[in-house]
Amino acid sequence: MTLGALADALGGRLVGDASTLIDQVATLSGATSGRISFLAHAKYAAQLKQTAASAVLLRAADSAHCNVAHIIVDDPYVAFARVSQLLNPQQPTQKGVHPSAVIAADAIIHPSCRIDPHVVVSSGAVLHEGVWIGSGSHVGENVTLGAHTRLYPNVVIYAGCQLGERVVLHANVVIGADGFGIANEAGVWIKIPQIGGVRIGDDVEVGASTTIDRGAIEDTVIEEGVKLDNQIQIGHNCFVGAHTAMAGCVAVAGSARIGRHCSIGAAALILGHLEIADHTRISAATVVSRSIHTAGTYTGLFPMDEHAAWTKNAAHLRRLAQYAERVQALEARLAKLEKTHG
Amino acid sequence: MTLGALADALGGRLVGDASTLIDQVATLSGATSGRISFLAHAKYAAQLKQTAASAVLLRAADSAHCNVAHIIVDDPYVAFARVSQLLNPQQPTQKGVHPSAVIAADAIIHPSCRIDPHVVVSSGAVLHEGVWIGSGSHVGENVTLGAHTRLYPNVVIYAGCQLGERVVLHANVVIGADGFGIANEAGVWIKIPQIGGVRIGDDVEVGASTTIDRGAIEDTVIEEGVKLDNQIQIGHNCFVGAHTAMAGCVAVAGSARIGRHCSIGAAALILGHLEIADHTRISAATVVSRSIHTAGTYTGLFPMDEHAAWTKNAAHLRRLAQYAERVQALEARLAKLEKTHG
Amino acid sequence: MTLGALADALGGRLVGDASTLIDQVATLSGATSGRISFLAHAKYAAQLKQTAASAVLLRAADSAHCNVAHIIVDDPYVAFARVSQLLNPQQPTQKGVHPSAVIAADAIIHPSCRIDPHVVVSSGAVLHEGVWIGSGSHVGENVTLGAHTRLYPNVVIYAGCQLGERVVLHANVVIGADGFGIANEAGVWIKIPQIGGVRIGDDVEVGASTTIDRGAIEDTVIEEGVKLDNQIQIGHNCFVGAHTAMAGCVAVAGSARIGRHCSIGAAALILGHLEIADHTRISAATVVSRSIHTAGTYTGLFPMDEHAAWTKNAAHLRRLAQYAERVQALEARLAKLEKTHG
Repeated sequence: MTLGALADALGGRLVGDASTLIDQVATLSGATSGRISFLAHAKYAAQLKQTAASAVLLRAADSAHCNVAHIIVDDPYVAFARVSQLLNPQQPTQKGVHPSAVIAADAIIHPSCRIDPHVVVSSGAVLHEGVWIGSGSHVGENVTLGAHTRLYPNVVIYAGCQLGERVVLHANVVIGADGFGIANEAGVWIKIPQIGGVRIGDDVEVGASTTIDRGAIEDTVIEEGVKLDNQIQIGHNCFVGAHTAMAGCVAVAGSARIGRHCSIGAAALILGHLEIADHTRISAATVVSRSIHTAGTYTGLFPMDEHAAWTKNAAHLRRLAQYAERVQALEARLAKLEKTHG
Repeated sequence: MTLGALADALGGRLVGDASTLIDQVATLSGATSGRISFLAHAKYAAQLKQTAASAVLLRAADSAHCNVAHIIVDDPYVAFARVSQLLNPQQPTQKGVHPSAVIAADAIIHPSCRIDPHVVVSSGAVLHEGVWIGSGSHVGENVTLGAHTRLYPNVVIYAGCQLGERVVLHANVVIGADGFGIANEAGVWIKIPQIGGVRIGDDVEVGASTTIDRGAIEDTVIEEGVKLDNQIQIGHNCFVGAHTAMAGCVAVAGSARIGRHCSIGAAALILGHLEIADHTRISAATVVSRSIHTAGTYTGLFPMDEHAAWTKNAAHLRRLAQYAERVQALEARLAKLEKTHG
Repeated sequence: MTLGALADALGGRLVGDASTLIDQVATLSGATSGRISFLAHAKYAAQLKQTAASAVLLRAADSAHCNVAHIIVDDPYVAFARVSQLLNPQQPTQKGVHPSAVIAADAIIHPSCRIDPHVVVSSGAVLHEGVWIGSGSHVGENVTLGAHTRLYPNVVIYAGCQLGERVVLHANVVIGADGFGIANEAGVWIKIPQIGGVRIGDDVEVGASTTIDRGAIEDTVIEEGVKLDNQIQIGHNCFVGAHTAMAGCVAVAGSARIGRHCSIGAAALILGHLEIADHTRISAATVVSRSIHTAGTYTGLFPMDEHAAWTKNAAHLRRLAQYAERVQALEARLAKLEKTHG
C-alpha cells in the first residue's frame, strides 16, 4: 500500500511522499526500507532518529524529531494496530469438510464453513457462515458457533455452549468443562452436576490453553469484546463484562462478577462470589479478596528484593502486629514523660 | 420426581405437598415453578422469601421464614448435590469403538467400553467395564483404566499409568508426562529419565488442562476421592492423600506429601519435598514453604489495596528490618530517659 | 550393566565388586538388590546406612558411612542422571507415517521420521531425520523441526515456527499462538496481527501444557538447552537465554529478556519489557517487577502463617506507612526530650 492510502485510512496527516510503498510493519530498531513503524512511548524516542523505516506513525509532538516520512495521529498504537491489520489481512478461509472429520448427521453446517482433519462435530451442533474448526477440535452436542468464529487446533467445547460471531479460540482452549462443584458429606466429596452452560459474546478472543467452566445451574457468561490471554481459568457461573481484558494466567474463582472495560493484570487471582466495578484495573499478581465497588487501580504484591534482604524483612513481617503494639506503647510512655518533663 | 420421593431419598422432613412434581434444580433467585432450590448460606436468606421455586432445601431454623414447600435437612448443600444427581442422572454410555480410533492389537478392551473418534489406545493398555474415552484422547502403552472411568476429549495418558474406577479426567488433562528432573553439569542441564509412573485411585476427578507428572524413580500417587480443579500442576513423586480437594491453578512441586482431607485454595503453591498434615486447609494464593505438622488453616497473601496506598506500604515493607531496629532503639533510649526522669 | 562399567563411564572410583550387576536406579529407601542409588543431600544421609541398594553414588566424604558398594564421584546427582540414562536408554523410534495422518503434499519428511495417528502436517513443513510426532499433534504451515525432535501427543505448532534438533515438547504444548497484542480505541479492543514467529534452539525441553506465543513483529526466541517445566506461559517477543531453567507455572509477560543460565522458581512471574542478567536466580512465587542487572538470588513472597496470625499482620501491613510515620515522629519527640533532659 502507499503511504498516502495508509494516511487516508487512518485519517492522519502525512508528512512525506504519499507514493512511497509500504509492505509491512516493523519495530523502530528492526525496520528496513518499505516498513512502517510507530512511536507510542517516550522510552523509544531515541530509536526514532536512527530508524531505517520508510515511515513512522507518531503524535504531532514527535514530528519535529523525525527524519523520515511519518503520519501524525492521535494514538500511534491504535494506528499501528489498524495499519498492521491492513497490511496483514486474514487469509480467506478455504471452505469444505475434511473427509477424516466426523460430523453428526443432524449437525447443521453452513456450506461456507471449513472443517479440518480429525474434527468431531456432535449431534445438534449449529455452525454458521464462515466458521473454521481447526484440526483435532471437538464440538460437543448442541453447541452453536456464530458466523466467522474460528477454533484453532485441539479446542474442546463441551455440550450446550453458545458462542457468538467472530469469536477466536486458540489451540487447546477448553470451554464448558464441569465447574468445581463438590459438597462434603462426612469427609467424602459428592459431585454437584454442572447443568449450566457457557455463553460467549461476539468478538471475544481466548488465548491458548485457557479454560472456561460451565455453570453449576445457570450459565457462565463472557460478554462481547472480551479478550483473554493464555492459560486463564474462569470458574463456573462467572460473569465477565464486555470489553474487559485479562493478561495471561489470571484465575477467576466461581461466581465472580467482573464489570465491563476492566483490565486484569497477569497472574492476578479473583476470589469467588465477589463483584468488580466497571473500568477497574487490577495489577499483575494481585489477589482480589473483596468486592471492588469503586473503579480505580488496585494492587497487592510483595516487592521483590535480594534474597538476604527479603529474608530479614519477611521475618519482621511475621511480627508486624507486635511491632505495632510496641510503637503504641512507646507513644503512651513518651506522652507520659512529655507531660511531666516536656 | 415428586417432592415426596426426594424427601424420602434425602431422609429429610417435608413441609408441603408430597405430590408436587420437581423436574430440575435452580437458584433461589432464578427458580420457576417445578424447580427446587436450596438455602445453605445466611447471605441468601433474603432471597428465600421472594423465590418462585416449588420447593427449597433448608435447615430447620429457616423453615419458619419459607413460604413455599421445603425439605428440612441437616446440610442443604449436600442435599442439593444429591437432588441434582437424582434429577440429572448420567446418560448411559453407548458402547462401541468408532472406526477412526486406532487400537493396538494387544490392548484389552471390555466390550461395554465406548471409544470415540480419533482415539489412540496403545499396546498393552487395559480398559475395564464401561470405560469411555473421549475423542482425540491418547492412552499410552500399558495404561490401565478401571471400570467406568471417563476421559473427556483430547486427554493424554503417558505409558504405564494406572487409574482406578470411576475416575473422571476432563478435556486436555495430561497424566504421566516427564517430571522436571534435570541435573546441572558445568552449566548444561542433563535430563534424568523419569521411570516412575502415576497411580490414581478410585473416584478421583481431575479438571480441564490439569497436569500430573510421572515419578522420577517411584510413582506419583493420587489417592481415592481426590478432587482437582482446572489447570493444576502436580510435580513428580507427589503424594496426594485421599479426599483432598484443590481449587484451580494450584501448583505442587516435586515430592511434596499432602495429607488426606486437605483443602488447598486456588492458585496456592506447595513447595517441594515437604509434608502437609491431614485435614490442613491452605488459603488461596498461599505459598507453603515449610512442612505443616499440625492441621489448621494457613494463609499468606499480600492484601490488595488502592494502588497509591500499596505503593507507599510496599516501599516501607522493603525497609521493615530498619524500622524494627529503630523501634528497638527507641525503646532503649526511652527506658534510659524514664530511668532518670520517669 | 556391571558396577565396574558404570564406574568407568562416570570416571568415578569404585569401592566394591566391579562384577556386580546393576539393572535399575532406585531411591535409598526404596532400593532392592540390583539397584543403584545416590546420596546428594545431607538430609538423606540417615537412609544411607539402611539402604538395600547394591550400590550407591556418593561423595568421598560419605564413603566411610556406606556399608554397601559405592562409586565416589564429585557430583552424585549428575552421576545419577548419567547412570539413569545408561540404564534407561531411549527406545529406538519406529519409522513410518500412520495412514490416518494427514500430510500436505509439499511437506518434506525425512524417511526416518515417525508420524503417529491423527497427526496433521501442513503445507511447507520440513521434518528432519528421526523426528517423531505424537498422535493428534498439529504441525502448522512452513514449520521446521530439527533432527530427532519429538512431539508428544496433542501438541500444536502454529505456522512458521522453527524448532532446533533434539527438542522435546510434551503433551498439549502450544507453540506460536498469537501474542496478546491489543490496542484500545474508545473502549473497544483492536487486535494487532501477530506476524512474528517462535524460534527454539537445540536441546530445549518443554513440559506439558506450556504455551509459547509468537512475536508481534519479530520472533519470540528460546535459546539452546533451555528447560521449561509444565504449564509455563511465555509471552510474545520474549527472549530466554541458553541453559535457563524454569519450574512449573512460571509466567513471563511480553518482551521480557531473560539471560542465560538463569533459574526461575515455580509460579514466579516476570513482568514485561524488562531484563534479567545471566546467572540470576528467582525464587518461587516471586514477582520480578523491575530489571535485574546484577546476578544474584531475588525473592519476594509473603510468608505463610497460621490464619489468625496472618490476619493480624496483614491488617497492620495495610497501615505500614502510618507506622513508619509514627516511628519517625517518636524519634523526633524523643530527641527533643533527650536534648532537654538527657
